[in-house]
Amino acid sequence: MENLYVIKIGGNIVDNPILLTTCLQAFSHIKGQAILVHGGGKLATSLAVSLGVEQTMVEGRRITDGETLKIVTMVYAGYINKNIIAQLQALNVNALGLSGADANLIKAHKRVGTNVDFGFVGDIDEVNTEFIHQQLLNNTRLVIAPITHDGAGQLLNTNADTIAQTIATAMSNTYKVHLVYGFEKEGVLADVNNEASVISSINNLTYSQLKKENVIFEGMIPKIDNAFLALYGGVQSVIIGKAEKLIELMNGTAGTTITI
Amino acid sequence: MENLYVIKIGGNIVDNPILLTTCLQAFSHIKGQAILVHGGGKLATSLAVSLGVEQTMVEGRRITDGETLKIVTMVYAGYINKNIIAQLQALNVNALGLSGADANLIKAHKRVGTNVDFGFVGDIDEVNTEFIHQQLLNNTRLVIAPITHDGAGQLLNTNADTIAQTIATAMSNTYKVHLVYGFEKEGVLADVNNEASVISSINNLTYSQLKKENVIFEGMIPKIDNAFLALYGGVQSVIIGKAEKLIELMNGTAGTTITI
Repeated sequence: MENLYVIKIGGNIVDNPILLTTCLQAFSHIKGQAILVHGGGKLATSLAVSLGVEQTMVEGRRITDGETLKIVTMVYAGYINKNIIAQLQALNVNALGLSGADANLIKAHKRVGTNVDFGFVGDIDEVNTEFIHQQLLNNTRLVIAPITHDGAGQLLNTNADTIAQTIATAMSNTYKVHLVYGFEKEGVLADVNNEASVISSINNLTYSQLKKENVIFEGMIPKIDNAFLALYGGVQSVIIGKAEKLIELMNGTAGTTITI
Repeated sequence: MENLYVIKIGGNIVDNPILLTTCLQAFSHIKGQAILVHGGGKLATSLAVSLGVEQTMVEGRRITDGETLKIVTMVYAGYINKNIIAQLQALNVNALGLSGADANLIKAHKRVGTNVDFGFVGDIDEVNTEFIHQQLLNNTRLVIAPITHDGAGQLLNTNADTIAQTIATAMSNTYKVHLVYGFEKEGVLADVNNEASVISSINNLTYSQLKKENVIFEGMIPKIDNAFLALYGGVQSVIIGKAEKLIELMNGTAGTTITI
């Protein structure tokens, strides 16, 4: 089977034009098939502030009301996605930017059954793997914004880590998929204040231990949970690390490798 | 050759949720291949006002400075485009939303050689007809936002009427193309205040006469100029009329037909 790299870059990368450009240059040097999933970043928050749209956070998560959904749709699927596409075209990468509504790429449903109503937040039901496969066959690289739809006309805000994991898993029937989570840190750190303390490898046994010891906590937990979901779902490898070191992450010479 | 309908809907339609839905329902009933090009509407202007971004107009045309480009990219390629896609998916139309940067769909250059510097406004150089053809073969309908790119990383604001004409013309080697300009009026009117005064047909001789008599003026002139460019470029038919009456326009039972 052919290799497929699913690269996710976080909001902190998207927010920083220099980091983003470095990262897109690395992305342009990947040999073979690749998909980029991007997060949101602070632009949506600052736009909400400028427009006087109040942001409600519950347990560190943003509640997506109607006005916030409008803003994230504009910023994620419009501004960020199209600027990435224009930059990739300039790097001779034929890229196609998509939300989950486009070509019915990612169908989701509004989150239900939680104590908190997160608003227009979507949990994924289905990925259009056939469309992805066809575009890859035409040597088109996909760049995916973290917006999905419910098939009944409603757009939904969806976590980019989960989108990357779900797409990686869904494509693992057809490709040898490698999932890379690129963010602002060197990897999973043993000491959160020391970038040299990268844990080079984590498996499900050490993961339980590291969580118990509170070495791994907060936002890193759902990311690593997504990594394990991908591996159990058939993805070949998952690596977490500094987005600018994309090529080293892919080589296994940087970052944290997650194994089962 | 197979029929291809290139439908352009103007900003006044996009601004009105009821008209837009009526129009998308009609679009979903088109048999055969179809492409939708949408204009911008007032949302970009009102967003600019909310954000304190001053809009400079010269000769009735907006100057696209950097901040305005950011806004139109968010609104046109993000909010408007993705909401149209979500609605079409709900109508069982498998639609794919695109800017001109996506898949290198529309390459343009920043307008030069004019007395006025219009800013980040693009004049079209090239259309990726092969990509369009491939998507149509897969029964995917394209929905195009009026944003193009220069191939060097710069997004550009581009007139939607011109995008519709250029795409219609470019596809006329492969398809029997019908171009429909849908807007808020019944067609080209003999008396601008009387919706019953539709001129059912205009050719290049009557067009010169109508311009001389000031029956056709201002914004209608570039639209009809685009219609003639399309016809001289190989497009089969061009019709201008009320967007909600899409099916009647396509049947030739409403609107103004342009002929050469």
